Amino acid sequence: MTTRNETRLERGKRQLARIDGEGGQRVIEALADIAPDFATYLLEFPFGDIYSRPGLPLRDRELATISALAAMGNAEPQLKVHIQAGLNTGLSRQEIVETLMHISVYAGFPAALNGLFAAKEVFAAAEPS
Amino acid sequence: MTTRNETRLERGKRQLARIDGEGGQRVIEALADIAPDFATYLLEFPFGDIYSRPGLPLRDRELATISALAAMGNAEPQLKVHIQAGLNTGLSRQEIVETLMHISVYAGFPAALNGLFAAKEVFAAAEPS
Amino acid sequence: MTTRNETRLERGKRQLARIDGEGGQRVIEALADIAPDFATYLLEFPFGDIYSRPGLPLRDRELATISALAAMGNAEPQLKVHIQAGLNTGLSRQEIVETLMHISVYAGFPAALNGLFAAKEVFAAAEPS
Amino acid sequence: MTTRNETRLERGKRQLARIDGEGGQRVIEALADIAPDFATYLLEFPFGDIYSRPGLPLRDRELATISALAAMGNAEPQLKVHIQAGLNTGLSRQEIVETLMHISVYAGFPAALNGLFAAKEVFAAAEPS
Amino acid sequence: MTTRNETRLERGKRQLARIDGEGGQRVIEALADIAPDFATYLLEFPFGDIYSRPGLPLRDRELATISALAAMGNAEPQLKVHIQAGLNTGLSRQEIVETLMHISVYAGFPAALNGLFAAKEVFAAAEPS
Amino acid sequence: MTTRNETRLERGKRQLARIDGEGGQRVIEALADIAPDFATYLLEFPFGDIYSRPGLPLRDRELATISALAAMGNAEPQLKVHIQAGLNTGLSRQEIVETLMHISVYAGFPAALNGLFAAKEVFAAAEPS
Repeated sequence: MTTRNETRLERGKRQLARIDGEGGQRVIEALADIAPDFATYLLEFPFGDIYSRPGLPLRDRELATISALAAMGNAEPQLKVHIQAGLNTGLSRQEIVETLMHISVYAGFPAALNGLFAAKEVFAAAEPS
Repeated sequence: MTTRNETRLERGKRQLARIDGEGGQRVIEALADIAPDFATYLLEFPFGDIYSRPGLPLRDRELATISALAAMGNAEPQLKVHIQAGLNTGLSRQEIVETLMHISVYAGFPAALNGLFAAKEVFAAAEPS
Repeated sequence: MTTRNETRLERGKRQLARIDGEGGQRVIEALADIAPDFATYLLEFPFGDIYSRPGLPLRDRELATISALAAMGNAEPQLKVHIQAGLNTGLSRQEIVETLMHISVYAGFPAALNGLFAAKEVFAAAEPS
Repeated sequence: MTTRNETRLERGKRQLARIDGEGGQRVIEALADIAPDFATYLLEFPFGDIYSRPGLPLRDRELATISALAAMGNAEPQLKVHIQAGLNTGLSRQEIVETLMHISVYAGFPAALNGLFAAKEVFAAAEPS
Repeated sequence: MTTRNETRLERGKRQLARIDGEGGQRVIEALADIAPDFATYLLEFPFGDIYSRPGLPLRDRELATISALAAMGNAEPQLKVHIQAGLNTGLSRQEIVETLMHISVYAGFPAALNGLFAAKEVFAAAEPS
Repeated sequence: MTTRNETRLERGKRQLARIDGEGGQRVIEALADIAPDFATYLLEFPFGDIYSRPGLPLRDRELATISALAAMGNAEPQLKVHIQAGLNTGLSRQEIVETLMHISVYAGFPAALNGLFAAKEVFAAAEPS
């Protein structure tokens, strides 16, 4: 997963492209004129460090991310980026829907509903399943 | 996973025993004198309905549960029950630790730290790994 | 309140129509192509089980719902549906406004303000008081 | 409810004693050596202003408070004070239990469980029902 | 900071105008037809009481407000009003950006990103720095 | 503030010792047997990267941290560590108390109360002011 001598920033860029695709790239670009250093941290710590660790596959990391963001219910743009990231890393649409339904038990029905409607938008914008 | 003619309540009891073990049973018993109907709902909806669905294995459901509860950070007793439930349904200690470290990206370092310290207590009380 | 031999799903449909009216029906329909089983759960557990219980009138249940959703502050669509549901089940506009002002003490002024502005939209869309 | 010429502080003290009883008084005393001005604000704004308003009876205000605090799940001491305040202002034990069960729909089962266990402690410490 | 004999309401109006400028005035006006008493409370308690206290300068109070609202992540309109208020009371754009980046440690990267994008909008609407 | 050629980890250790003192060191040690890599990340990203940035003094960073943690209300151990860190980096007891009182406006009275009682414990354990 990691190339020898790759810096954290390089590894983070590679992982972001693989995981979040265009959605991630747009976030990095949107930071350029307000907080370019934060774009660097975002690439380095979440993607260069955490997502690059062995011990939990990317598909499982996205399942955890979708679950956390849907439960918190206050970060809709990031939830959508990571529903797409889940599709990019091996989660099926059905698994994402099951995860969001599951959240109703722990964070209530509104959190689950808002997560499902976010997934509906992401699925509609993606290629046909 | 589901036996023909089993009621939701029966299926929920079977699933709770399998997933949460003694921790789940203690919750049901603690409800007996304050809200016995809620014990029934807890068995029927989360365990009889949601955890009994195909489409996402129990191991993945516990990964989602641990992630959601650690991110919300306001339900420590339930987080501990589900860290044990994760061990019961196929998550390794390493996978649970990775999930909790992962949460730092989405809910901050304190949420991850409090989740890791909850896991430390659960692991210490369990059989040696 | 409950008709003999009615299933949970039938009772839930009847309660949803009575409580949430068109707003609730739109949620059920929006789930049809993404998570139809979740529409069933939503009818069965919240409406067929919880809202159908004696011991707390629907008007009080909506007061509790409005208070919880306004305090959490992360489920605006559901807050609006339940402000309308409050009107449908016996809360006056004044009581809803008082509840939302009250929330400032427990969840802060922004939560109260966002709840009041949600109520303003719902009241404007409803028949004149 | 309001005596002519009473100051906000006097009215707040009267309301706090009526609503929260000893639990409220202990909070005021605990603030004396760290933030005595905050004790004054607590008496004046929540109790002198908000709880003293007509338009929503104290029993309904406590129902809203219990619902909000149980849903937020991060203020257990205050939740317990207001479960007792609910009993003091006309909510029955059954109504409080129904409210806390109701919260499972909007904030998840852990929030409802932690609220019910808080109620169990408060009820046990109160006079027999 | 406080003029002798000024009422809490008068002091609050003066402070709101100084701190939040037009954004604050629009909130007061928007409350006029739904909850005019709440406009009074908003002027009296947060602005007439809290923001008028000595012991912490307005610049520091806005730093605390921006940090709290960005961390909670569920009050975007108020966050924007207070990013502008931060500029009005002596915080530089750089200090606001640093505060929002800092929040990533305690509330996660999505909370920081959403705060930074809110700041980007407010800065774009303000006079050129 | 930064020594040439210092690694992120070295800088983070230096900053943690300066800011959080013994409280921070205990957290690092408690992670040793459950998630030693997370101790490294904690030193590197929050302390080696964020707290080491120019543009916002440590005193202001702790004011932001205290405000965020008190508003979220779900990380009491970390709130206490950072109230001590505030004292270590130049906040007076009065400024910390003002910040926590200020939070009542944005996150409600219970969040402010729980923050003030946390401060009371930290102040009592520290040297006399």
